[in-house]
Amino acid sequence: MDKLSVIKIGGNIVDDEIKLSSFLDLFASLPGKKILIHGGGKVATQMAASMNIPQTMVDGRRITDVATLRIVTMVYAGLINKNIVAALQSRGSNALGLTGADGNALLAHKRTHPADFGFVGDIDSVNAAFLRSLIANGTDIVMAPITHDGKGQLLNTNADTIAQSIATALSTSFETSLVYGFERSGVLLDASDDNSVISRLDPEQYMEHKEKGRIFAGMIPKLDNAFAAIRAGVTRVIIGKAEELPGLLSGEKGTTIVHE
Amino acid sequence: MDKLSVIKIGGNIVDDEIKLSSFLDLFASLPGKKILIHGGGKVATQMAASMNIPQTMVDGRRITDVATLRIVTMVYAGLINKNIVAALQSRGSNALGLTGADGNALLAHKRTHPADFGFVGDIDSVNAAFLRSLIANGTDIVMAPITHDGKGQLLNTNADTIAQSIATALSTSFETSLVYGFERSGVLLDASDDNSVISRLDPEQYMEHKEKGRIFAGMIPKLDNAFAAIRAGVTRVIIGKAEELPGLLSGEKGTTIVHE
Repeated sequence: MDKLSVIKIGGNIVDDEIKLSSFLDLFASLPGKKILIHGGGKVATQMAASMNIPQTMVDGRRITDVATLRIVTMVYAGLINKNIVAALQSRGSNALGLTGADGNALLAHKRTHPADFGFVGDIDSVNAAFLRSLIANGTDIVMAPITHDGKGQLLNTNADTIAQSIATALSTSFETSLVYGFERSGVLLDASDDNSVISRLDPEQYMEHKEKGRIFAGMIPKLDNAFAAIRAGVTRVIIGKAEELPGLLSGEKGTTIVHE
Repeated sequence: MDKLSVIKIGGNIVDDEIKLSSFLDLFASLPGKKILIHGGGKVATQMAASMNIPQTMVDGRRITDVATLRIVTMVYAGLINKNIVAALQSRGSNALGLTGADGNALLAHKRTHPADFGFVGDIDSVNAAFLRSLIANGTDIVMAPITHDGKGQLLNTNADTIAQSIATALSTSFETSLVYGFERSGVLLDASDDNSVISRLDPEQYMEHKEKGRIFAGMIPKLDNAFAAIRAGVTRVIIGKAEELPGLLSGEKGTTIVHE
């Protein structure tokens, strides 16, 4: 099977023009088939503020109301996505930007449990055949964190979940690595020490670290997510700094999550 | 050769939710291969105003400065494009939204003559092979009026010109009809009478009407553009109301521009 890298970057890269440019150099020069999923960053919040659109919060989470959905659609699918695509094209990557609505790539439904957070989508299906056909043509897909419900409604959707869903759906066709880029060097034994990276983590070791309280509680949802991807057929999941992309993929940097 | 319809809609449709919805019903139910090109409408101007971004004009034309380019990228490639794509998906059309940067669909250069209007692009080439591969897969392309220069720069680009360039580039592979939707019923002999539509116009008749001053001067650039498309290989160009799409394509409505 061909290899495929599914790489998710978050606000710490998207919001920083210099870091984003360096990351796109690394992404474009990465050999083989690859997909980039980007989060939203702070621009949508800044835009809402500059347009005097109030942000409603429920349980500490921002509500995606109609006005907010308009803004995230503009910022994520327009501004961020198309600037990344143009930047990758200039670096020799044949990038193509998508939302989940385009080609029905990601079908979702509006989340109603445990609370109504507005136009937030949970993914029901990935159009793997469509994504495979683009990949087969040498296209590097750049996915914005917006999906649709098939009834004409766009939905704001978590980029980590999109990355996991896409990696899982394509893992039957490719030997798939899923990279979660975030602000730390990997899973740390000591949250205050960026040099305490756990380089390799299998389910048994994860259980042991968790039981002994060695892993920062805030990492547990991300790691549960990562192990779910592994169980679903993704070959490797790597967590670390997107700035160290080649090292993450070679296993020299970050935390590699493995089956056993 | 298979038939292809390339349909351009402007602000009179894009800005009107009810008209847009009716038009998308017509577009989705149109048999055969089709591409939609949408203009920008008034939303970008409204957005700039709500963000207190001043609009600079030169020779009566708006300058696309950095702030304006950000807004048009958000509104055209994000808000308008993705809402149209989601709406078409819900109507059974497998729509895919693109800018010229995506898949290097439309390569352009920044216009510097006759004046510097900012980040405005003139098209150099259409990636016909890429568009053909999408069309062959049953995809209905929805193109936003944004291109790129291949060096990482997005450019604001006239939707009429994009429609003409795409129709021309695909006219060697398809029997191509190009529809220019606008606010009037077609080319009128009397600009004040919407019932005075010239139903069929060949180059000779056009010359005659022009010489006799029968055609409203404001239509001449659009018509010169239409005849240029015909000369370049497009089978038919139709000008009229996008609300009457089936009638335009059947020749019962609007003005059909023909070779001879």
